[in-house]
Amino acid sequence: MSILLNNNGYDNRSWLEALSRLMPERRIHIFPEIDDIEAIRKEIEFAVVWDHPRGDLIRYPNLRAILLLGAGTEAIDQETQLPDVPVVRLVDPEVLNDMALYALYWVMNFHRQYDRYREQQRDAHWQRHEICAPQDYRVTVLGLGMVGRTVASTLARNGYQLSGWDRFPQEIEDVHCFSGDTQLASAFADTDVLVNCLPLNAATQHFIDRHLLALMPQGSYLINVSRGAVINDQHLIEQLDNGHIAHAVLDAFASEPLPQANPFWHHSKVTVTPHMSGATYARSAARLVADNIQRIENGAQPFPLHQPAGISSAQAC
Amino acid sequence: MSILLNNNGYDNRSWLEALSRLMPERRIHIFPEIDDIEAIRKEIEFAVVWDHPRGDLIRYPNLRAILLLGAGTEAIDQETQLPDVPVVRLVDPEVLNDMALYALYWVMNFHRQYDRYREQQRDAHWQRHEICAPQDYRVTVLGLGMVGRTVASTLARNGYQLSGWDRFPQEIEDVHCFSGDTQLASAFADTDVLVNCLPLNAATQHFIDRHLLALMPQGSYLINVSRGAVINDQHLIEQLDNGHIAHAVLDAFASEPLPQANPFWHHSKVTVTPHMSGATYARSAARLVADNIQRIENGAQPFPLHQPAGISSAQAC
Repeated sequence: MSILLNNNGYDNRSWLEALSRLMPERRIHIFPEIDDIEAIRKEIEFAVVWDHPRGDLIRYPNLRAILLLGAGTEAIDQETQLPDVPVVRLVDPEVLNDMALYALYWVMNFHRQYDRYREQQRDAHWQRHEICAPQDYRVTVLGLGMVGRTVASTLARNGYQLSGWDRFPQEIEDVHCFSGDTQLASAFADTDVLVNCLPLNAATQHFIDRHLLALMPQGSYLINVSRGAVINDQHLIEQLDNGHIAHAVLDAFASEPLPQANPFWHHSKVTVTPHMSGATYARSAARLVADNIQRIENGAQPFPLHQPAGISSAQAC
Repeated sequence: MSILLNNNGYDNRSWLEALSRLMPERRIHIFPEIDDIEAIRKEIEFAVVWDHPRGDLIRYPNLRAILLLGAGTEAIDQETQLPDVPVVRLVDPEVLNDMALYALYWVMNFHRQYDRYREQQRDAHWQRHEICAPQDYRVTVLGLGMVGRTVASTLARNGYQLSGWDRFPQEIEDVHCFSGDTQLASAFADTDVLVNCLPLNAATQHFIDRHLLALMPQGSYLINVSRGAVINDQHLIEQLDNGHIAHAVLDAFASEPLPQANPFWHHSKVTVTPHMSGATYARSAARLVADNIQRIENGAQPFPLHQPAGISSAQAC
């Protein structure tokens, strides 16, 4: 029986190659490059997909599981009709580590004032600036799902002072965890850098708005490694322009690729990166997909299973 | 009995304040701001100094120890006459961690191609570049004293592939250690980034020359967090200009502050930082000095004791 593969046009060849090597006995059909899709619908057992066309997944009568090619679930959550099979997210520890190191890089960029030293070099100006110790530099991670937990732990392990906020109570070693609406203001007020790791769903759309940003200390920083639409862009630009937020590093946007005309590109207080903080590569992730297919074949539970949206931000990342 | 304090004109007030708070019973004289130095020579028991004028330390008849205000010993090693008292280096774990994070920042800057993304932003150009996993990105640390060990361990702990070289055999968890002249070529040949942590002494002056740089792979990177004179500057510029070395990040120079006319300032393949990778601050380090004075008072051994130069690069950092 066969696999339907659709990484939404991106990098399908690497995935085909990596999955074929791990499961040589299976036929893999790349969607939509299939001559007669109706002829093969019945043989598809596993859909390995990302941003698959809405309404299509219900049309494979022998489907046994949907394996997403990423950790985010906002696309699958918009399906109105899904077959009654497990939906499995792809959470690659390598990708989580890459995202955590991305956050660490930008936290250090702010804490150690590297951009100031870059400017000084242009003027051949030798001057050392006193800084606080990492344990006195406060970073708050918003959303303590798998991404947020990895980001917080990595930053704490490297010496920074870590807090975290999640809708539901969490416990992470060396991280001061806040939870729920009542503790939101404390999580925002007591920070030098806020790292957004919230998943995108109905409850988090435009969650970071002018009211929350205003709670942050004057001159603090924002890093976004999750989804663009969690931030209200207009409100962020307003808080950058009035000097309340010193700088924002954005790796995710409401519309990607970020349109040429978007003001973020040329805003002096914004760093734009092209959703590269934790890119999923077939090189490491195909093994996780193959292992989950094997688990299902053995009657075991694949991991991590996707829960219906809106239940808990801690269960998504 | 009293303390002689001389941080070579830099930040003496912070040190005076911090040491006075920790040892309120002691008189502390700031050198050279002393009205009649001859009158107080006999009362000095401890010299807390950095780059102290040559030939002066022998002139305190009741001196019990020399406590250096840094980890480097190249200045004290040039003294021809020293009293027969312990020389204690200042090795602050906070400073070691700062230096390791400096190295990590620049390794990530190269590995993740952040400068390329900075350039892309100028052109509003959205493009993600595939990179290897951190465990396939090879970093070699030269000199496995206290700085080198901390740098290597920190980079390994964050997922990078670490090698190290030292004159004498060393063992560090998760670091492939080379040693001695015969393994030098292997240490240089098998790396994407070389991080120099060698102490400066007769054996390491201009140690990194065109011959060693030529052993590194085409397009590799150099980071220097120890002393400028370990590198032959002319040879480095030659290897940058011919494209063999892609970029060098230099935090230490043969002459500091780096003179305005020095070509490093405006070389497109050189990043200059003003010896800030691991600045010693009175805030954290005064406690280490006070503790060592207390150890001596108690008849215990201060730490870390300085060994005569040239014995082992592993004993200095």
